[in-house]
Amino acid sequence: VSAIPHYSLQELALKLGLHLDGDPNLRITGIAPLDQAGSHQISFYSNRRYHQDLLSTRAAAVILRPQDAASCPVATLRSTNPYASYARLSQLFEPGRAVVPGRHATAQVDPEAEVDASAALGPHVVIGAGTVIAADVRIDANSVIGAGCQIGEGCHLHPNVTLYDGVTLGRHCIVHSASVIGSDGFGYAQERGRHLKIAQLGGVCIGDEVEIGAGTTIDRGALTDTVIGNGVKIDNQVQIAHNVRIGDNTVICGCSAIAGSSVIGNDCIIAGAVGIINHVTICDGVTVTAMSLVNQSITTPGVYSSGTGLSDSASWRKNIVRFRQLDELFRRILQLEKK
Amino acid sequence: VSAIPHYSLQELALKLGLHLDGDPNLRITGIAPLDQAGSHQISFYSNRRYHQDLLSTRAAAVILRPQDAASCPVATLRSTNPYASYARLSQLFEPGRAVVPGRHATAQVDPEAEVDASAALGPHVVIGAGTVIAADVRIDANSVIGAGCQIGEGCHLHPNVTLYDGVTLGRHCIVHSASVIGSDGFGYAQERGRHLKIAQLGGVCIGDEVEIGAGTTIDRGALTDTVIGNGVKIDNQVQIAHNVRIGDNTVICGCSAIAGSSVIGNDCIIAGAVGIINHVTICDGVTVTAMSLVNQSITTPGVYSSGTGLSDSASWRKNIVRFRQLDELFRRILQLEKK
Amino acid sequence: VSAIPHYSLQELALKLGLHLDGDPNLRITGIAPLDQAGSHQISFYSNRRYHQDLLSTRAAAVILRPQDAASCPVATLRSTNPYASYARLSQLFEPGRAVVPGRHATAQVDPEAEVDASAALGPHVVIGAGTVIAADVRIDANSVIGAGCQIGEGCHLHPNVTLYDGVTLGRHCIVHSASVIGSDGFGYAQERGRHLKIAQLGGVCIGDEVEIGAGTTIDRGALTDTVIGNGVKIDNQVQIAHNVRIGDNTVICGCSAIAGSSVIGNDCIIAGAVGIINHVTICDGVTVTAMSLVNQSITTPGVYSSGTGLSDSASWRKNIVRFRQLDELFRRILQLEKK
Repeated sequence: VSAIPHYSLQELALKLGLHLDGDPNLRITGIAPLDQAGSHQISFYSNRRYHQDLLSTRAAAVILRPQDAASCPVATLRSTNPYASYARLSQLFEPGRAVVPGRHATAQVDPEAEVDASAALGPHVVIGAGTVIAADVRIDANSVIGAGCQIGEGCHLHPNVTLYDGVTLGRHCIVHSASVIGSDGFGYAQERGRHLKIAQLGGVCIGDEVEIGAGTTIDRGALTDTVIGNGVKIDNQVQIAHNVRIGDNTVICGCSAIAGSSVIGNDCIIAGAVGIINHVTICDGVTVTAMSLVNQSITTPGVYSSGTGLSDSASWRKNIVRFRQLDELFRRILQLEKK
Repeated sequence: VSAIPHYSLQELALKLGLHLDGDPNLRITGIAPLDQAGSHQISFYSNRRYHQDLLSTRAAAVILRPQDAASCPVATLRSTNPYASYARLSQLFEPGRAVVPGRHATAQVDPEAEVDASAALGPHVVIGAGTVIAADVRIDANSVIGAGCQIGEGCHLHPNVTLYDGVTLGRHCIVHSASVIGSDGFGYAQERGRHLKIAQLGGVCIGDEVEIGAGTTIDRGALTDTVIGNGVKIDNQVQIAHNVRIGDNTVICGCSAIAGSSVIGNDCIIAGAVGIINHVTICDGVTVTAMSLVNQSITTPGVYSSGTGLSDSASWRKNIVRFRQLDELFRRILQLEKK
Repeated sequence: VSAIPHYSLQELALKLGLHLDGDPNLRITGIAPLDQAGSHQISFYSNRRYHQDLLSTRAAAVILRPQDAASCPVATLRSTNPYASYARLSQLFEPGRAVVPGRHATAQVDPEAEVDASAALGPHVVIGAGTVIAADVRIDANSVIGAGCQIGEGCHLHPNVTLYDGVTLGRHCIVHSASVIGSDGFGYAQERGRHLKIAQLGGVCIGDEVEIGAGTTIDRGALTDTVIGNGVKIDNQVQIAHNVRIGDNTVICGCSAIAGSSVIGNDCIIAGAVGIINHVTICDGVTVTAMSLVNQSITTPGVYSSGTGLSDSASWRKNIVRFRQLDELFRRILQLEKK
């Protein structure tokens, strides 16, 4: 089993590039929230909501802003962005699995695939013809990669991932289990009441440092590619239809559904269970709140919402009857105002 | 192929602990609804909606409340809870697959894993180092279990399930296909417009007798575990984010999405396609109706809803315009009332 | 790697049964939109929105209605339904993978299964006892088929698909990756606060020419089958619960959730992320728009919707407060009108 790493406080300060005020030899074995951390655990303070927890923390040390150091009863590591320092710290404590380069004996690699010698292919992995797998790629057990794919340097595909033919992943992407990239877009032509399948001839092109959650599906394009920009982060069970284009560093939370040919700008935040339809274009810097339906293009950065908010069901039942009469209501008020 | 079981009516009465009024030797080969059951099938009556069907049923026998026996034209098995008796009955008719203990020749089990001799591992199953698999566990074909997991006695994992490292399942859990447990929580720190990944160092801890539907995803915690209580039932395509806590015997229907750090009490019913966000806490005994968004904590047991109800699209289009003017409307009415 | 097909314009005209006006020997190597097509690509024109693109296209040829031919600067193929002709055309340009009939050496086929000699089973495929696989079926890598299934002629199952026991697929179905067919319906009986599992004894019966998207789940019936009609097209991440019945040629877009025992007619269009609950029946020819909740039966063909439409979040916050006061508002207006 993998060993969990540990460090001296001094080592952590060096690795994170932070000023340390405290015993450099303190041994740190893990990270914990301020109110739960013990004497060998490090914590962080970035949100004023937890000020009380800071005052009474028993952590070995706390990462915090210089101006908060005076309130801290224990050793400090000073950072202008403690939450980002925590992100870097968390990566240091990830239990390292010994990844053995090479192909597991049960992996099935097409003779026409090119797999870098440093790549690690797990049990029962299948790699199609013409696929190129770069250095330091890790593909976990039972994942299937189609033909003509390109997997960039340092990508990590978790178990049971499926890539169809013709999918390109940039460098340092992470793809979680049960996700599917490159499945057919949902396209049919009607002819006398039947649906004729439109073959989906485009591919999927994904940038660098993209993370794709578990159970997420990204369809291939109809004629041209579906395109995901650099640094995009996609949560679990997101559906991205054919020919969607997503700009750099946009974040898409769990269970959102993005219909075909939608265009989303850079630096957007699409919260959970959002629907985006009607071939809309969303400009850079837009936030859409949870469970909203975007059915028209958005041309001004800002925050957008739909829905009714939660009520007890008895009142809700009355109000939804009234919702159906809203237009009529406005006419009645107009009558009243005229009088 | 597996044989479908059959029983005499007498045997069924004994196994279910019910009083039989009818021919004990009648051979019962299956279960069917009241209006479809034939002369060797048993049925049940628990909902008054089907009273007409009871009167004319041709079933061999009917499970029903003692007070309903007089209306039944055929043999009866009397139960104070006929629907619960039907649940037990249904299990008796499940076609038993001969599960052979041991590891299929193609299963890949890490030498540092501990697998009970009575466990059955299907073809291409992969088990990581340090994982402990208890008695009578069944893991079906092509499922992948990470390192450091614990799978309690009598669990059944269907094909193509993925467990990441450090996932604990209690006893007698059922996990359906394409579900993923222990994938990374969706956590990033912002630094100059980029998203730094926060390593997800917690695990997932799941109680006894939990059922997890097909295509459901449960993320591991950031620092501490994501926790699912005993007897929780989770339907298909549910998303449970990092550090969610779900109380005992709560039911979550298909396609619901529960955002990070949500806390849900015991004995709740979360209907289908519900969204739960904003780190809310929901007390015990709450029901949330389908497609509602819970964006604030709920402290009183009861039924809660959101949404507008369905209309024909032409009226709906008019009413949603009015919805956007609602606040203005209230002001206009206030003006009218002042006059 | 697979070769991409190419054709002379004459060959395409013959294969599509269309009248050609242009150089029959022109070599066509692919399809592209009107504004992107080059001198060896064919395009199509079916939507007036792209009229400008038609006038300036540099495609080798365009498929269009006879009455539009005069506006086209290049060769034409005349069709009364250009979009349907495009669908047929797209299939001609699908890169053909050489599918080798037979079983990959790593496939695990139960001795009691019957697999047609023309069927192609990929690596690590698992086939259960009593399952019958017809001619020209293709089952891709790492898919698992339970016992007692029937897979009709010409079906294609992509990688990592799961079929439980007792699932029937008609002819020429396509099933995309990570989908699950035949998982247990979500059924429990309550007994003293606990949930007793109801064994799901029905199967799933799927018609001919059905396509099932990636990550879609279709549960088996409780006593009788879940039934999907002929020609039904189901997109990604759709959830279909036990005993749902879907009529012929109905289309269900991504992320919709259809609760148990719902009945949907023929020729319906269920848009994305729709919820259907309460055991409703929907008649033939109904369209439900995206993210609507259907909580009552629909007996008249037409278009139906729910939701509030999108606003900026600041106004939205005000309006949802008012939504909760709607019923009260109607009473206040009634008062005003009385005066």
